[in-house]
Amino acid sequence: MATIETCLSPELLSLHEVAAKNVVIVDIFRATSTMTAALANGVSGILPVMDLESCRAKVSEGYVIAGERNGQTAAGFELGNSPLAYTQGQYIGKKIAMTTTNGTVAIEKTATLANQIILGAFVNLEATANYLLEQNEDVLIVCAGWKGRFNLEDSLYAGALAQALVPYMSTDCDATIAMRSLYESNQHRLKLFLSQAAHSKRLQNHGIEEDIDFCLTLNQYPVVGVLKGGELVAVSDGQ
Amino acid sequence: MATIETCLSPELLSLHEVAAKNVVIVDIFRATSTMTAALANGVSGILPVMDLESCRAKVSEGYVIAGERNGQTAAGFELGNSPLAYTQGQYIGKKIAMTTTNGTVAIEKTATLANQIILGAFVNLEATANYLLEQNEDVLIVCAGWKGRFNLEDSLYAGALAQALVPYMSTDCDATIAMRSLYESNQHRLKLFLSQAAHSKRLQNHGIEEDIDFCLTLNQYPVVGVLKGGELVAVSDGQ
Repeated sequence: MATIETCLSPELLSLHEVAAKNVVIVDIFRATSTMTAALANGVSGILPVMDLESCRAKVSEGYVIAGERNGQTAAGFELGNSPLAYTQGQYIGKKIAMTTTNGTVAIEKTATLANQIILGAFVNLEATANYLLEQNEDVLIVCAGWKGRFNLEDSLYAGALAQALVPYMSTDCDATIAMRSLYESNQHRLKLFLSQAAHSKRLQNHGIEEDIDFCLTLNQYPVVGVLKGGELVAVSDGQ
Repeated sequence: MATIETCLSPELLSLHEVAAKNVVIVDIFRATSTMTAALANGVSGILPVMDLESCRAKVSEGYVIAGERNGQTAAGFELGNSPLAYTQGQYIGKKIAMTTTNGTVAIEKTATLANQIILGAFVNLEATANYLLEQNEDVLIVCAGWKGRFNLEDSLYAGALAQALVPYMSTDCDATIAMRSLYESNQHRLKLFLSQAAHSKRLQNHGIEEDIDFCLTLNQYPVVGVLKGGELVAVSDGQ
């Protein structure tokens, strides 16, 4: 039976085996939610980039550039990190180069060793769970956290995904057991519970309550974001 | 209002401010439970020691030596890491030099910067909470974890302590919010929930179910273990 493990912060990655696993990268507010929304809304591929400067350089290669630092659109960037920027079909067929505070770092740290890198987000939770079950490989959920620390929203997602997988996969990982229980006892009041979270408070100060609501609305999309040839692309559940 | 913060693994300590805080070290199975039981049962002081060899050398200074590695009494040591070794009054007035896998390391990492180092254990939860409230300084709960990883029992204790402190102290720490909720939804079935934990399973394999039951029995003792002059000593609630 395939196994599930959760890494609660990129700072703890060295304690986990990454090799040959299906690694689910989670940065709910907002990188992985936004990437998933972009792919579900017709973006053809997303190149994750480590820093703003390298991202800017991608304009000359035909990429639309998206970047935020500390929750704000970076200077000179067309897009920030809002998932709502993609939902009116403005970027169908476009390629996006994206750099974010925490999410891109987690992708870069695991990309070379993992079997596959998969985007984790509430907006396509069920599709991702189904995809992972079809693959039937060991799963490592990596929470991007906030500047290396544990954060509530990414960890709750780990619990939600574990809840969906555990009947069919096994776990002896304490972090997975804990987060599954935490999700189960708070899923009926996810937004209320998360409103206490440190990062939610930071985002509320930036006036992006709509983004928060969007990122916490489950199963809006049937697609799954997977890293292929260095870019994140959409695969449909079953592909 | 004083604040509460939780560090879920010693590997994440560099992300937390330790200076001037009351640091609660938690290693439920079994270091901090055993140390607390020892102090409550008349041991005059406990010297935390980093390694087995330094610990052995303390015999010549009149210490009884206690040490375990991977859950077993270390070769040549009078005591392992069982709290039950102290409950019949066998060590009243004795000094103990103790080294353990995870707990001692967390003490050493924080001792020089902290305001005070305090032992965290379910066996004296209420006494510790009262002591911290009287002190009214910022609290940092440091979970010893298991070889650097998050573990369930230490994290649940963090939640239990937060539950007792939060009406009187504030927190914007996601780990504290999460563990408090986890404890609140599982406190009525603590032993059952923890029986899933990776470390509980390891300990069950060592045939020490009695130790586990003891470590999870709340509020057996009114004393609090505090590091003073390099040794852990008992202070009574109110002292």
